[in-house]
Amino acid sequence: MSLVTRGYECAPWELRWRGLAVDQLQRTESAFALSNGHIGLRGTLEEGEPRGLPGTYLNGYYEEHELPYAEAGYGYPEAGQTVVNVTDGKIIRLLVEDEPFDMRYGAATEHDRVLDFRTGTLTRTTEWSSPTGRQVRVRTQRLVSFTQRAVVAIRYEVEPLDGKMQLVLQSDLLANEPIETDTTDPRVAAALQSPLESEFYLADGYRAVLVHRTKRSGLRMAAAMDHQIESPDGLRTDILAEEDLARLSIAVDVPQGKVLRMTKFVGYGWSAQRSVPALRAQVDAALAGALQTGWDGLLAEQRAFLDDFWETADIEIDGDPELQQATRFALFHILQAGARGESRAIPGKGLTGPGYDGHAFWDTESFVLPVLTYSVPEAARDALRWRHSTLPKARERARQLGLRGAAFPWRSINGAECSAYWPAGTAAFHVSADIADAVARYYWATGDAEFERQCGAELLLETARLWMSLGHFDRHGRFRIDGVTGPDEYSAVSDNNVYTNLMAQRNLREAAASCERVPEVASLFGVDETELGGWREAAERMYVPYNEELGVHPQSDGFTEHLDWDFAATPPENYPLLLHYPYFDLYRKQVVKQADLVLALHLRGDAFTAEQKRRDFAYYEARTVRDSSLSAGTQAVIAAEVGHLDLAYDYLAEAALTDLHDVHNNVRNGLHMASLAGAWLGVVAGFGGMRDHDGKLTFAPRLPPALDRIEFRMCFRGSRFAVEIHSDSATYRLLSGKPVEIRHHGEPMSVTEEPATRPVPEIDPGPAPHQPSGRAPVHRDPGRVRRNLAASC
Amino acid sequence: MSLVTRGYECAPWELRWRGLAVDQLQRTESAFALSNGHIGLRGTLEEGEPRGLPGTYLNGYYEEHELPYAEAGYGYPEAGQTVVNVTDGKIIRLLVEDEPFDMRYGAATEHDRVLDFRTGTLTRTTEWSSPTGRQVRVRTQRLVSFTQRAVVAIRYEVEPLDGKMQLVLQSDLLANEPIETDTTDPRVAAALQSPLESEFYLADGYRAVLVHRTKRSGLRMAAAMDHQIESPDGLRTDILAEEDLARLSIAVDVPQGKVLRMTKFVGYGWSAQRSVPALRAQVDAALAGALQTGWDGLLAEQRAFLDDFWETADIEIDGDPELQQATRFALFHILQAGARGESRAIPGKGLTGPGYDGHAFWDTESFVLPVLTYSVPEAARDALRWRHSTLPKARERARQLGLRGAAFPWRSINGAECSAYWPAGTAAFHVSADIADAVARYYWATGDAEFERQCGAELLLETARLWMSLGHFDRHGRFRIDGVTGPDEYSAVSDNNVYTNLMAQRNLREAAASCERVPEVASLFGVDETELGGWREAAERMYVPYNEELGVHPQSDGFTEHLDWDFAATPPENYPLLLHYPYFDLYRKQVVKQADLVLALHLRGDAFTAEQKRRDFAYYEARTVRDSSLSAGTQAVIAAEVGHLDLAYDYLAEAALTDLHDVHNNVRNGLHMASLAGAWLGVVAGFGGMRDHDGKLTFAPRLPPALDRIEFRMCFRGSRFAVEIHSDSATYRLLSGKPVEIRHHGEPMSVTEEPATRPVPEIDPGPAPHQPSGRAPVHRDPGRVRRNLAASC
Repeated sequence: MSLVTRGYECAPWELRWRGLAVDQLQRTESAFALSNGHIGLRGTLEEGEPRGLPGTYLNGYYEEHELPYAEAGYGYPEAGQTVVNVTDGKIIRLLVEDEPFDMRYGAATEHDRVLDFRTGTLTRTTEWSSPTGRQVRVRTQRLVSFTQRAVVAIRYEVEPLDGKMQLVLQSDLLANEPIETDTTDPRVAAALQSPLESEFYLADGYRAVLVHRTKRSGLRMAAAMDHQIESPDGLRTDILAEEDLARLSIAVDVPQGKVLRMTKFVGYGWSAQRSVPALRAQVDAALAGALQTGWDGLLAEQRAFLDDFWETADIEIDGDPELQQATRFALFHILQAGARGESRAIPGKGLTGPGYDGHAFWDTESFVLPVLTYSVPEAARDALRWRHSTLPKARERARQLGLRGAAFPWRSINGAECSAYWPAGTAAFHVSADIADAVARYYWATGDAEFERQCGAELLLETARLWMSLGHFDRHGRFRIDGVTGPDEYSAVSDNNVYTNLMAQRNLREAAASCERVPEVASLFGVDETELGGWREAAERMYVPYNEELGVHPQSDGFTEHLDWDFAATPPENYPLLLHYPYFDLYRKQVVKQADLVLALHLRGDAFTAEQKRRDFAYYEARTVRDSSLSAGTQAVIAAEVGHLDLAYDYLAEAALTDLHDVHNNVRNGLHMASLAGAWLGVVAGFGGMRDHDGKLTFAPRLPPALDRIEFRMCFRGSRFAVEIHSDSATYRLLSGKPVEIRHHGEPMSVTEEPATRPVPEIDPGPAPHQPSGRAPVHRDPGRVRRNLAASC
Repeated sequence: MSLVTRGYECAPWELRWRGLAVDQLQRTESAFALSNGHIGLRGTLEEGEPRGLPGTYLNGYYEEHELPYAEAGYGYPEAGQTVVNVTDGKIIRLLVEDEPFDMRYGAATEHDRVLDFRTGTLTRTTEWSSPTGRQVRVRTQRLVSFTQRAVVAIRYEVEPLDGKMQLVLQSDLLANEPIETDTTDPRVAAALQSPLESEFYLADGYRAVLVHRTKRSGLRMAAAMDHQIESPDGLRTDILAEEDLARLSIAVDVPQGKVLRMTKFVGYGWSAQRSVPALRAQVDAALAGALQTGWDGLLAEQRAFLDDFWETADIEIDGDPELQQATRFALFHILQAGARGESRAIPGKGLTGPGYDGHAFWDTESFVLPVLTYSVPEAARDALRWRHSTLPKARERARQLGLRGAAFPWRSINGAECSAYWPAGTAAFHVSADIADAVARYYWATGDAEFERQCGAELLLETARLWMSLGHFDRHGRFRIDGVTGPDEYSAVSDNNVYTNLMAQRNLREAAASCERVPEVASLFGVDETELGGWREAAERMYVPYNEELGVHPQSDGFTEHLDWDFAATPPENYPLLLHYPYFDLYRKQVVKQADLVLALHLRGDAFTAEQKRRDFAYYEARTVRDSSLSAGTQAVIAAEVGHLDLAYDYLAEAALTDLHDVHNNVRNGLHMASLAGAWLGVVAGFGGMRDHDGKLTFAPRLPPALDRIEFRMCFRGSRFAVEIHSDSATYRLLSGKPVEIRHHGEPMSVTEEPATRPVPEIDPGPAPHQPSGRAPVHRDPGRVRRNLAASC
């Protein structure tokens, strides 16, 4: 008997997959990943096989490899970094009467996995008949603790269903697990092949520890496990440790109606500095804490942590249950990626897979941090602390490039630039303005003066210095920034990218404002009035090209003069374009991979008139192919602002479902954190119309016709409040803290405990924009969606 | 006793180096290289050691290697090509009374090498005392035959100076000689390490043959040698052959006053197709021909070939003997590079060294072919036939890039693109217009209708098609070419590069004209009236940006808005800039590596007014650093045209002396053919003011004050004529053939056998332009030069 798989089941607070579907394992392992931002476990089955791609990651733990160039150039990074699969502590193998429990053999009558957004656990329930016909029920539950960041806990229960049987459990720590990789670069493959060298191993009782070190980057890590066992009498146990394996084996005869229960606690730690004994002590201490708290205690802490999160950040969507689920899935994974990173990066894939080599990009600051800033601000702060900790590398990089201040890397794990293609990497200097923007947003949203003194001001002033050395006043007195790359990866190295110039303008202004607030920090870094004056003048005179003839902003100088891409002649199978056309061809034509000017309309909406936004949006809609998962969320935001609410809804759904529907066919390597964040942006900045220019919180809510109601929550300067949107009105109410001053469609008001309802004004969006042939988002018909989902929702 | 080395000695018809100077060997080996365009031998000593870098090259014979990319992209070439050092047939070792003749031991009382521009031979004379005190005179002479292109001949003479002695000679064919390489790429190094696999070897009598094949590119080559020996009685000989070595050994006692003379003939052949027996037969046949002609016959043919060349192409310079020598050195090496290439490329270094991996670039068409077109037109034709033979690859490359017509490679040996950095390679589409320009020039200069039918028209029409697909008519009806790279390698990927657009314009016009001349060819390739009309319209409406405010042409759109490079803050040791600054920084600022707009002023001078040339030249002089050896010759041409004759003289000297003075510190890897060609351009197009727009030959001669007289010769449509320039007049006289219609400073005239003298009009050049700080050419004071050279000239 085989189980029918219908994909994920729809439910408001969980993600469930029923049945096995070996060929879908790799993508579901990404969706079922557990993480606390420090440790990440892909959602592999406990028994190790069948599997898609096993993965256990420690944030910031990587191996180095050489970056090869057929033609090298000055300033090209020489070393790449790639996240490595560390010692796997998830593995618990079961033998049923000497038969390995392997779902590829025998038969499963029930099998499902559930990721629960409120308990923060992944549960798996399987009823299985062995090839010799013996029946067991296996139930496992695991968590990566939000409250004890070095701790993973797994409960494993086996119950005989057809009489007494001998059960053997083998609980492993397994290092240098053989894995497959997509890479074609032999250097990267080599770095991933057995990256760990054993330094220490020990086993005693129910406890074991393995210490390893990466071969080239020289980072040390330790993994330790301990166990609690509840079993019938007659238990026999054995433990061993060797270089790459520790294993606790237990064997016992279990009668029908009884349960064999093992609780496994795993502690992880790593360091570039600390010794083997120090790391061993660290993981032992983590285990001691976990054992003291116990399984039930860890579960309770996990639940409490998540209850608090949802009270601050939940989004309710009435009228589209799939979108409801996807939005909570998104929020849950963003929390997992950011919660306990604590001065480490938030990678583009979180800790859900090896995609992008585990690197962090500007998406963190521009997409993920806005979510965290208004839901878990201390997580946003910690991510920015990571950037601050990399300032020495960013300063050195600026020096190497002949610039002042700090030039943050396009992609990195440890803060050093790892991008081997400079036109799309090094030249994308906007990353530094994006970091500054996130710093300013965090400051305005929290008023965290301590962070500003310790980190924020320095980040702002060093990035401001970067722009002063990147740009120059031309003979007309305009401040130009030439030869840089904006967000759109189908253009590169052009003059006066509007997004970059406007974000640099904000950076310069916020840096000046911060230096005024904390003059002692400013003077520590040698910022004087002359320098401040220079920043203000450059901001004031920032050049923003505009094509008067067409009445639109060119993405960069000259963009609107370029040939339009021939979309009609581009067959659907030629997307994403970068796999079928040379950069040369893409860069010189009007084709946009992802929101660039449109992202400026969002993040620097204060620099555009409503009419400009309408015209610019329509112009770029016709040229944007969304070959990047970063785009749909932003397009949702601006579509909503200019009144194309159906279109905004389509884009929101695309962003929210990117990973669950595997839109880009690469979820197997990890989830897209920025796209998940795009779901939040589409709701809060899109239908909520939330903007935070200059620290002023404004809203312009509108509901798309397809939905009945949206409610979202956020926090701001220590207060929590909710915004509830209906088709003709919106209601604001304070949940905790002091009243919050906002604007509703331009009208000032206070959000207080007394719910305040305001009407939603009409908007005439004008004619619908069109997208390139075949590139319109899937039109979301909630009626059809509801019918399709009726069985499971 | 050690010999004093003072560098090259000055003489009008030869290049001589007296003394050994082991540390200078590698660069002198380049200067003393012999080649006929098919075979190239670096000027190593016969005895093999001491040596700089041994090298024997066969035009078009290469090994392939993988091109690595840390981040690959669509359309990136996957395979590189690199010239390999083939079986060395130059080696003749001498033992003097059992002591190896090695100039690092014992003592030389005389040692000089002479490259003779009229005999086409490299002669070496050494008087040497062995460590045990025995004295010999060794005299060798070698040639790579211009008339028998597969043949190398070496005469080796030894004379005992202090009594009878036993002499042993070992004459080798040596394959897979160990060599050092500058490359840091392990793949290239691997390709160069023992690149040849033995397929056949045989020795018999005085003759031996080795056949090898490259491991990856699969090209087969054969080398064979035969010998004639004149010796006293008592000669004992022995011959052997093994996989990578064949050796004829001879031993004889030679009394004082007698000479042991060996004449070695070496035949080379290679093929991608032919079998081992076929190649063996080919080299045997080459040897048979050489033996039949004999040493004296080969010498006589060589002399006759060169006499004819100098009668057509000689340049006489009175008043600067060093420049006289350098100019003939340049012409001699250009002849060597191009004479017998016969449908193979002319590499950037000719066959003088492994620099640039042995690749050919656009320099061939834009710098070398003009020289050959007006001196050895059949060599220009053959080089263009090579381009024609690569049309299938160029069409395929265009298809891969989404273009029509033919896209010729930036760098290649076999016609496939080998450039691994697309912004400076693939995007430099001007190479295709440069080829078209060379085709048109050759046609106008020769009227070669057969070549036009077979190759020329097809090259023109396929490149015209490239431009039609690269450019587009904008909404103002202008034809734009966006996102391409011009000649200047310190800019890349910009819109409407003036040089590119103007060269594309000529390409389109010449293609249309050619299709009208040979409609049967046009129709064979499907060119109809509509297509022709499109070419004419695009040419007519070609957009040429101009900065009205500054009154100069921007090199490309936006260039004149960029920040000026801070030359004052650039220390001398930071040149060449590309080794000390990132491309990112160079591309976005006004700094020019090599003539780009100024090259347009030369090659498309018909598109500019005299005033524009004056202003543009001054503007770009202030921004051009000449980090490329391609630049000085062009700057000489335009400096002369706008009247800065002293400056033109300085640039001419720089171009002509680039290799003899090792200006770029890389002559060790080969001579710079384009810079050598720049010497001819500086004289003929510079001081001669020769232009050939639309096939009309015009002159505007002027003499720099430092020189007394220049006379140059050239051929045009089967006629030869001479132009003699004095300070106030110029004289034209026909040397052979029919009268030639020209213009002298705008005035039409006929060049006939009766010398015609015309006055040189005055010119007011206005204020002298300035160069970036520290980058002015060395000012050439002929008085000082003459004084310095007095001893040797």
